[in-house]
Amino acid sequence: MKAPGPKVVALGGGHGLYASLSALRRVTDRLSAVVTVADDGGSSGRLRRELGVLPPGDLRMALAALCGDDEWGQTWRDVVQHRFRSQGDLRDHAVGNLLIVALWELLGGDAPDSTVAGLDWVGRLLGAHGRVLPMAAVPLDIVAEVRGADPARPGEVSQVRGQVACAKTPGTVLGVSLVPSDPPACPEALAAVEDADWVVFGPGSWFTSVLPHLKVPALARALTGSRARRVVALNLAPQPGETDDFSPQTHLEVLQAHAPDLRVDVVLADEGVVDDAEALDKAVRALGGRLVLADVAARDGSPRHDPARLAQAFVQIFHD
Amino acid sequence: MKAPGPKVVALGGGHGLYASLSALRRVTDRLSAVVTVADDGGSSGRLRRELGVLPPGDLRMALAALCGDDEWGQTWRDVVQHRFRSQGDLRDHAVGNLLIVALWELLGGDAPDSTVAGLDWVGRLLGAHGRVLPMAAVPLDIVAEVRGADPARPGEVSQVRGQVACAKTPGTVLGVSLVPSDPPACPEALAAVEDADWVVFGPGSWFTSVLPHLKVPALARALTGSRARRVVALNLAPQPGETDDFSPQTHLEVLQAHAPDLRVDVVLADEGVVDDAEALDKAVRALGGRLVLADVAARDGSPRHDPARLAQAFVQIFHD
Repeated sequence: MKAPGPKVVALGGGHGLYASLSALRRVTDRLSAVVTVADDGGSSGRLRRELGVLPPGDLRMALAALCGDDEWGQTWRDVVQHRFRSQGDLRDHAVGNLLIVALWELLGGDAPDSTVAGLDWVGRLLGAHGRVLPMAAVPLDIVAEVRGADPARPGEVSQVRGQVACAKTPGTVLGVSLVPSDPPACPEALAAVEDADWVVFGPGSWFTSVLPHLKVPALARALTGSRARRVVALNLAPQPGETDDFSPQTHLEVLQAHAPDLRVDVVLADEGVVDDAEALDKAVRALGGRLVLADVAARDGSPRHDPARLAQAFVQIFHD
Repeated sequence: MKAPGPKVVALGGGHGLYASLSALRRVTDRLSAVVTVADDGGSSGRLRRELGVLPPGDLRMALAALCGDDEWGQTWRDVVQHRFRSQGDLRDHAVGNLLIVALWELLGGDAPDSTVAGLDWVGRLLGAHGRVLPMAAVPLDIVAEVRGADPARPGEVSQVRGQVACAKTPGTVLGVSLVPSDPPACPEALAAVEDADWVVFGPGSWFTSVLPHLKVPALARALTGSRARRVVALNLAPQPGETDDFSPQTHLEVLQAHAPDLRVDVVLADEGVVDDAEALDKAVRALGGRLVLADVAARDGSPRHDPARLAQAFVQIFHD
């Protein structure tokens, strides 16, 4: 049995968080995910509208990333990730979304403690290597300030509302905020951040999965005030739409603009995707941190992190 | 640890099978349920039409009846039994129905072995005290011969198709058959019947839950040919619609009409609902069996069996 490892909190949503969790589960047994709850598309968006619940999809995917290694864990992971492929009422619903929502209804509606209890039950079902928590106790909408959202007026700045619309806008996203603007945070998420040794931001859709955490005021205070050290794991490629043409430095500048008081200890970037290491290093030092370049990309040519390589990079960062 | 008890197969569907399983799980650790798959109403009917699968509802309810006694088993039972109460796409769907169907899709479509494997996985989730099997490997339709299905023509005999329509017909049901008429049986169900010490018919909706098993030819052959002894557990009240005005004797006559070769060893009836014990005893002896009268009704005035009392009656029957 290896040592339990540091207490790590990973922030994000969607495929980016799936990647960081798939790596971090190899590094520590004391892992929590704090997950965006602003999705308004697909199965999650429909459940949110039909039942008035938190959008469960990003939470489900994080739980799936943490599933047990045995046949039990893998089978239930496949079940929670399974989507119905009909043309009828169930089309595209992920089974795990339905399971999470059912547990919430069963355990007492949308009170924050039943939200966490429901996620913990799915975690127990999966034999999860860690805990999954929502970043807020109520469903959120992301509102983006966008330049050129209407291609006919490329210079105009306007507001785009909703995660799907923000992620797909043809314009340049300048920043995001949340509706409601001061949502109740999840107490267990605040406690996890306050108690952490390390907090990991990203990778993931920068404006719609990584930065929203910093716009939940109580969570932002916990993140800036925590004694934990902070790692930013940069993406391997710009997100079409959201961060077209963004350099690694731009990602950091945007992060700082959303949380001016946040100090960053380490920025992790793939050595193959950094064009100007010197400029990036300067941007990292401006945030108070150091740059770690590592080989963390998958070998299949996709802009995805390889879990084992990313885990190796985290091991090095946490030990230095 | 008590002895494992006799090998028992319970036949039926819906609330009746739930009652017999709730009792039998107290009597033996070697318990299988063989369940009707002809439902065409509610959540099951919609899933059957949308996804082309076996109607899962009666299978789900049987699994729930067998759930483990600990917090784990009870929580997951509550989850699989939970129904969404929206006005939208998910309205009235039972979560366990969705879970069973997802496992079927995941494990390889509607091949008989993935059907059973999917049910076994839900059984493992629930810590089930026994195994739940379908009576056939394909979805079935019940067709009833009904006198007076159209109240305007009270003497006319016509066919009514579908479990919901048969259960609700205002006419008198004379008998049922299945479409398709010679469906593939479930091999595990045949094996369980052949290997059983006791087979239990009912209680339950007589024409739509208890008798259909006898119209699956391979299963009927197994039931009549098995070395197992056979118990018929009679209902506590006539089923509105299906068996209005049916005496206990009529239930037995109808049973015999549907399976002339079936010998019955024991008929169990509640002592409080038998008006004419002599006539019933005669009907039982005509089937080759003996009548057991016992106090098995719930104390709340509902026409439901009390699990502990019914269990006590089964203990006595199995030991005599």
